Amino acid sequence: MRFSKAFFPTLKEAPAEAEVVSHRLMMRAAMIRRLAAGVYTLLPLGVRAQRKVEQICREELDRAGAQEVFLPTLNPAELWEKTGRWDIYGKELIRLQDRHGRDFCLGPTHEEVITTLVSHEVQSYRDLPQNLYQIQTKFRDEIRPRFGVMRGREFTMKDGYSFDRDEKGAEESYNKMVEAYKRIFMRCGLSFGVAAADSGSIGGSFSHEFMVMADTGEESISVCAKCGYSANTEKTPVTVLLPDNSGGVLEKVHTPGAHTIEEVSTFLKISAAQVTKTLIYMDLSNETPVAFLIPGNRELNEVKAKNESGALHLQLADPATVERLTKAAVGFAGPVGLEGVRVIADLSLKGRGGLVLGANETDHHYTGGEEGRDFSAGAYADLTLAEADDPCPECGVPMDIRRGIEVGHVFKLGTKYSEAFEANYLDESGETQTIVMGCYGIGIGRTVAAAIEQNHDDDGIIWPLPIAPYQVDIILANTKDADCLEAAEKLYAALESSGVEVVLDDRDERAGVKFKDADLIGFPYHVIVGPKGLKEGKLELKSRKTGEREMLPLDRAAETIKDRISQEIEIFASP
Amino acid sequence: MRFSKAFFPTLKEAPAEAEVVSHRLMMRAAMIRRLAAGVYTLLPLGVRAQRKVEQICREELDRAGAQEVFLPTLNPAELWEKTGRWDIYGKELIRLQDRHGRDFCLGPTHEEVITTLVSHEVQSYRDLPQNLYQIQTKFRDEIRPRFGVMRGREFTMKDGYSFDRDEKGAEESYNKMVEAYKRIFMRCGLSFGVAAADSGSIGGSFSHEFMVMADTGEESISVCAKCGYSANTEKTPVTVLLPDNSGGVLEKVHTPGAHTIEEVSTFLKISAAQVTKTLIYMDLSNETPVAFLIPGNRELNEVKAKNESGALHLQLADPATVERLTKAAVGFAGPVGLEGVRVIADLSLKGRGGLVLGANETDHHYTGGEEGRDFSAGAYADLTLAEADDPCPECGVPMDIRRGIEVGHVFKLGTKYSEAFEANYLDESGETQTIVMGCYGIGIGRTVAAAIEQNHDDDGIIWPLPIAPYQVDIILANTKDADCLEAAEKLYAALESSGVEVVLDDRDERAGVKFKDADLIGFPYHVIVGPKGLKEGKLELKSRKTGEREMLPLDRAAETIKDRISQEIEIFASP
Repeated sequence: MRFSKAFFPTLKEAPAEAEVVSHRLMMRAAMIRRLAAGVYTLLPLGVRAQRKVEQICREELDRAGAQEVFLPTLNPAELWEKTGRWDIYGKELIRLQDRHGRDFCLGPTHEEVITTLVSHEVQSYRDLPQNLYQIQTKFRDEIRPRFGVMRGREFTMKDGYSFDRDEKGAEESYNKMVEAYKRIFMRCGLSFGVAAADSGSIGGSFSHEFMVMADTGEESISVCAKCGYSANTEKTPVTVLLPDNSGGVLEKVHTPGAHTIEEVSTFLKISAAQVTKTLIYMDLSNETPVAFLIPGNRELNEVKAKNESGALHLQLADPATVERLTKAAVGFAGPVGLEGVRVIADLSLKGRGGLVLGANETDHHYTGGEEGRDFSAGAYADLTLAEADDPCPECGVPMDIRRGIEVGHVFKLGTKYSEAFEANYLDESGETQTIVMGCYGIGIGRTVAAAIEQNHDDDGIIWPLPIAPYQVDIILANTKDADCLEAAEKLYAALESSGVEVVLDDRDERAGVKFKDADLIGFPYHVIVGPKGLKEGKLELKSRKTGEREMLPLDRAAETIKDRISQEIEIFASP
Repeated sequence: MRFSKAFFPTLKEAPAEAEVVSHRLMMRAAMIRRLAAGVYTLLPLGVRAQRKVEQICREELDRAGAQEVFLPTLNPAELWEKTGRWDIYGKELIRLQDRHGRDFCLGPTHEEVITTLVSHEVQSYRDLPQNLYQIQTKFRDEIRPRFGVMRGREFTMKDGYSFDRDEKGAEESYNKMVEAYKRIFMRCGLSFGVAAADSGSIGGSFSHEFMVMADTGEESISVCAKCGYSANTEKTPVTVLLPDNSGGVLEKVHTPGAHTIEEVSTFLKISAAQVTKTLIYMDLSNETPVAFLIPGNRELNEVKAKNESGALHLQLADPATVERLTKAAVGFAGPVGLEGVRVIADLSLKGRGGLVLGANETDHHYTGGEEGRDFSAGAYADLTLAEADDPCPECGVPMDIRRGIEVGHVFKLGTKYSEAFEANYLDESGETQTIVMGCYGIGIGRTVAAAIEQNHDDDGIIWPLPIAPYQVDIILANTKDADCLEAAEKLYAALESSGVEVVLDDRDERAGVKFKDADLIGFPYHVIVGPKGLKEGKLELKSRKTGEREMLPLDRAAETIKDRISQEIEIFASP
């Protein structure tokens, strides 16, 4: 591709709405443009990077025995009503009516459609296992679309589904997909981790997330350096140890203006762990409140809270609700005498005393509170978010917390969907059995964005070679110099004909502009064709990643570059 | 791919709703399944055929200098309001509201989105020309979806758009795309024609359709064997010659029960050409009637009628309306004394006499009618549909009418969209100029279906090699025979490793079932591995297309097959 003819409208500045570096760089490096909130056009450089990720997905999934299908975006409402997700999915599901008034949604995921398909086509144990995937545009009406293609309302996803005879088969399929995913992200040239995860609204018995490690990631992962345990902090079991100070006296004390844990513990000169945090949430699906009690030095894990409470849509109660329920200002809620609110307490509070509790009275707390004596909860559970140095749930060693971007998620679904759609088969003895499912997703656009979050500097993107839109940029420093022009054209032709993905920057622009664009777009290799080197029969090769420069003899330049690229891609591809 | 593990659920019978052969065969050969009216899932064999067509499109468009983008499906209503198509498109446009109540449609085509993009990114004459395309799912809520993927409500389309400085540049871009399209359909292995066409609701000054020739095609094309003229019959200029019998007397005659042209001409013992057909239509957009007069031996060309009348939604008036307007039963409408109806007449009627006309009175006609004396029209135009043996508009030789399936359509758009979105650029002298556009579409799924309409027999599909889902099917006649199994596995491995797309039919099924599926799915080459041939060290190779069979020596079978496939694909690819 000649830069002079290409549609590469790079930008000096990113628009103000671009909050994260990948969004900024994807805008500046002419990869995407915004059409509406969370709705982006992919420009040629964006398409090329995305197609690379898609192709790697296809190759590795095909290798693992999966087969590609293409399911409709228009999903009839009846299917989603069968699983109850027509209601559960809420406003994230984009709905419409056709000209006959029939209800459809735009598929945000395709369990309903694929299970319907398989329920019709699979009859016998001989038709199983099956593993079907697609690469497709998905639609989710996010309440707050953000970070460019990272959390859009319309985005490209690879979603796959496995169908097995039994639990054992389903686990084999699951493990095969985990291995395929590892190969996919390795081949994309990314540093990633695999973390145990919560199953969320998809359902199923267990799941793992694939995380591209990046400081800017939205997700946090607990990692044990000793035994290799790794899980989303949301999913990490936590055991908080509280000192046992039971046997004291419950006493109401005046704590004027002490709303926060920090204010209370400072005022009373005690540790934050001794103050019990009472957090009142609302289950929006039925408008009932639920209070969570945790030690004051910890954060509530909302995923655990949601799972334990069984709430469909959990949200922190607004101040008016808190005031109504506690008859006190916000900051003084506590379990003693709290009525009309279901209470769930962290396990660490069981049997513990010497606790400071909100008194449900403005500017007052209790000291010396004791679980079991002064208050009790309807349920006790692990409710807190893992933190750095929490003990590994497997081996007890203190763990690290790292940040990452979720790019893949695999779920062992079990029979939730196959039961809803009667996806059955006849086994060897003619008995009807329910198919056991798994489902597997990769955010294609998000993988591209995550690659940028992980690989960039102040000047722009530093593409991992396997997913770079182009591999080489030939920078013709001076288009007026006939010798340079000839050498650049020759190299361009030679690289193109040997299958290297190459751009020739033949624009009538200053060399500085070309260098800046080369760094911004992030071509892995830059070849600078200038009169000085050319006099010695040489071209300059620069690696975007290392910054290393070397002079290549003119007659061997194309071959050297081609070989280097092949070798480097090979490294990512070999297991 | 091993057939035993593949998701190839072939069917003995197609469902009753499948009216055309491609629909029936795509169902039976496990390519598609219906999810809702006009909404289909692509199964693995369908995906593979479609991906082949897509890949050929990409290669040829890239070769022609076009660049791939990916535009959003969610189109904000504002864009469509700017061009007026939010209203004009009517019920075919699928509309929805997001969670904030903002209006969107699902893109049925992308002129609005791409012109918006280009209007922001292109500033100078140096940024032009540009040619951008995408391959994407499109949505059109067809009133009567039919013929499987041929006329679906959700379908895959390649749509492209060119942007030039001036008319001359736009024509060059247009011609480049015509050449690229020719190469695409040639490389797909299809017999096709290029026909001048009407521009329809897309607008623009001229357009051509690419037609896959097939007797079952919905479109008809006038073709001149002498000069090569070719156009959709809708678009073909027609000059009807009527004998001049003027000078007679207008006389009302009793024609009891003669409603049709045939009944009238039989009753009056005259030729159909002498009877003038008066067809009353309604423009549904403003509920006004318009009558078209044509010679009784011809058909009205509704596209010409629509263009000439300027009507947005033209539909034959219902009987009640006809009766109200003519004050007579249907079948007796005529221009004499017809009030409140705009009349447009075919050019052939100009100055002609001796015409039989409906008398606007039940069971009565006029004879001896004369244009200009007894009636006149508000406008005169070419209104009839081309028929076999009509003279070629270029060279006058009688033309053929052939049938085809429209798989591609190219439009020279002009400035309709660039004006709406102020897509301008500054020329060399700093003056603001309007960009001149073209647009170019290929129905990807429809091309696959058209290939089947053109290439099939009673047993199934006969894939053109370049778009076959797989190239070779190895039929293991008896899975219990160890020698056969070994030979088949060896060949399978050899072909796979040399890049041949091969299926090994290793199912525990009767050979007859495997032969039937091989023919139905339409693998271009079948290799039959049987004990008889094997004893002589040979495998049988069968061509699906010619039915020719030959025995290949075991040790050279893989190479022979590979070479033959490469050579055959090369033939399609060379210009």
